[in-house]
Amino acid sequence: MAAGGTGDALDRLIALVADDMEAVNATIVERMASDVPMIPALAGHLIASGGKRLRPILTLAAAGLCGYNGPDHIKLATAVEFIHTATLLHDDVVDNSALRRGRKTAHMIWGNPASVLVGDFLYSRSFQLMVETGSVEILGVLADASAVIAEGEVLQLASAKNLETTEETYLKVIESKTAALFAAAAEVGAMAAKVSPDKVKALAEYGRAIGVAFQLVDDALDYAASSDTMGKNAGDDFREGKITLPVILANARGATDERAFWLRVISDDKQRPEDFAAAVDLIKLRDAIEDTIDRARSYVAAAKDALSVFDDGPHKRALLALADFCVERAY
Amino acid sequence: MAAGGTGDALDRLIALVADDMEAVNATIVERMASDVPMIPALAGHLIASGGKRLRPILTLAAAGLCGYNGPDHIKLATAVEFIHTATLLHDDVVDNSALRRGRKTAHMIWGNPASVLVGDFLYSRSFQLMVETGSVEILGVLADASAVIAEGEVLQLASAKNLETTEETYLKVIESKTAALFAAAAEVGAMAAKVSPDKVKALAEYGRAIGVAFQLVDDALDYAASSDTMGKNAGDDFREGKITLPVILANARGATDERAFWLRVISDDKQRPEDFAAAVDLIKLRDAIEDTIDRARSYVAAAKDALSVFDDGPHKRALLALADFCVERAY
Repeated sequence: MAAGGTGDALDRLIALVADDMEAVNATIVERMASDVPMIPALAGHLIASGGKRLRPILTLAAAGLCGYNGPDHIKLATAVEFIHTATLLHDDVVDNSALRRGRKTAHMIWGNPASVLVGDFLYSRSFQLMVETGSVEILGVLADASAVIAEGEVLQLASAKNLETTEETYLKVIESKTAALFAAAAEVGAMAAKVSPDKVKALAEYGRAIGVAFQLVDDALDYAASSDTMGKNAGDDFREGKITLPVILANARGATDERAFWLRVISDDKQRPEDFAAAVDLIKLRDAIEDTIDRARSYVAAAKDALSVFDDGPHKRALLALADFCVERAY
Repeated sequence: MAAGGTGDALDRLIALVADDMEAVNATIVERMASDVPMIPALAGHLIASGGKRLRPILTLAAAGLCGYNGPDHIKLATAVEFIHTATLLHDDVVDNSALRRGRKTAHMIWGNPASVLVGDFLYSRSFQLMVETGSVEILGVLADASAVIAEGEVLQLASAKNLETTEETYLKVIESKTAALFAAAAEVGAMAAKVSPDKVKALAEYGRAIGVAFQLVDDALDYAASSDTMGKNAGDDFREGKITLPVILANARGATDERAFWLRVISDDKQRPEDFAAAVDLIKLRDAIEDTIDRARSYVAAAKDALSVFDDGPHKRALLALADFCVERAY
C-alpha cells in the first residue's frame, strides 16, 4: 500500500486526538477502580489488551471537528468505551469465545459469572460518567444505543443457525449490535459541542455508516483472515453457526449440493474438522467475500457524504480517511 | 398471627398504592415490548411470575408519603423493577439456579446467552425511563445503585467458599447487592416529590435498613424454609458454597469437628446428599438462625426510626408495618 494510505490515516487521526486520548486512558483506569480487586483485574485484562479504541476516538474526533474544548468529551469517550467493553465481556460469554484481541478471553480466566457481573459494573460506571456531564439529552442517546445493542444481540441469537435469515434481518442485527454505538459515539461528541442539529445528525449518520461497514468487513474477515491478523479465531462465526452476509450470499447463490452443505454445517450443527476450509472455498466460489466488501464500500461512501456539512480541516480529513480504513484494513 | 398483623400490613400498603401499581404494571408490559419476540417472552416469564414487587411499591409509597401526584413515580418504579429483574436474570446465570419464585428460571428455558442479553436490555430500558423524567440527579442515584449492586455481586462471588469471610464483608455484600436498590427505590420516590433533603435522606435510610433486614431473613430462610414457602430451593446457598451469616456464626461458634464439617462442605466443595440436613442441625445448635433474625430486627428498628421526620398518616403507618413484614415473613 502506498504511503499516505489508510493505515497512515488512522495514525493521523490518533495523533490529532492524542492528548485527549491520554486523558481518556487515565479516566478509564481511574473509573474501573473498585474496592473489589477482581473488578479492575478482569476489566483491565480486556481494556489493556490493545483494542483500537475506535469508538472513543470517534467521540473525541467528533468533538474536535465541532470545535469543542471542554472536559465532557473525555468522560463521554470513556463512557462509550465502557459500554463497548461491557458488551464484549457479555458477548464472549454468549459466544463462548476463547480468544479476543489475541489474548485469552476474560471468561476463560475468571469464569462466566465474573464476566457477566463486571460487564454490569462497567455499564453502570458508564451511566455514572454521563450523569457527571449533566446532560439528559446525551444520556438519552447512549441509553437508546444500549437498548438497541442488546436488542440486536438477542436478534442475532434468535437468528443463529437459521439459513432463512434474510439480508434485511442481518443488516438490522449489525446496525443494532455494532453501528448503533458507532453512531452514538460520534453523535454525543457533537452534542457536547452544542453544534446545530444538522451537524449532530451528520455525525450520527457518519458513525452509523462506518459502523455497518466495519461489521461487514469483520464478518468477511472471519472467512478470509488468519487468527494472527484478526486477534481472534478465524472461523469463530462459522463454528457458532452465526448467519453473516458471506454465508447468506453463498447459500443463496449455491447449487443444490452447496445448500445441503450449508444446511448440515450451519443449521444441523454437524460440523467436521475439514468443513471450515470447505466453507471458505464455497464462499470464494460464490464471490461472497468480494460482494460483502463491496456492500461495505457503499456504506463508506455514504459516511463520507454525511460529512459534507463540515468545512475542510484536519479533523474532517482524518474522519474521511478513517471511513476508508474501515474497509481497507481487510487487506 | 393476630388480625392486623404484618401480612395484613403488606396488603394495606399494596391497597394504598393499588392504582399507581396498576399503572406500573401497564408500563412494564409496554416497555418490555420489542420487535424481537424473545425479549418480552423471556422478560415476561420472570416478571409475570408474581414477585412481590416490593421495590416499585417502595418508590410509589415514598412518593405517596411525600405527597407526590405527578407521573414520574410510575416511570421510576418501573425503572427500579427493570433493574431488579435484570439483576435476577444475571444472578440466575451466575448461580446456575433452577428455580425462581417457584418456576423454572429463564436461563433453564432460553439458555444463558439469552438471559444475559435480555438482562442488558432491561438495564438499558430502565435508563431510558429515567431519562424521560428529565432528572439527572435521579439518574445519578440509580446509576450509583446499579454500580454498587454489581460490585456487591462480584464481592460475593470472590468470597464464595471462603470461610474466613468476616461478618463485616458479608454485611458489605448484602448492603450492596440488596439494600442499595431498596434505598434508591425509596429515595427516588422522595426526589420525584422534591421534598427537603432530610426527608429524601430519611427514605433512603429506611430503604437501606429494610433491605438489609430483608436479605438477612432471606439468608436465614435458606436454612430454615421448605422450597414451597420460598419459591426457590432451600439449600441453594449451601450448595453454591455461599457465605451467609448463618454459616459465619455456626462456623465461628463451632467445635473442632463442626469446623471440619464446614471446611469440607463449603470450602473443599465435597458435599454429600445428607450434608444439607446436617448443616441445618448445626446451624440450629449454634442459634445461628435466631441470631440472624435478631440482627434483622435491629435493622427494622433503625428503619422505623428513620421515618420519624414524617407526620403520621396512612402511608407512614403502612411503611412502618412493611418494615415489620420484612422480618415476620420468616414465620
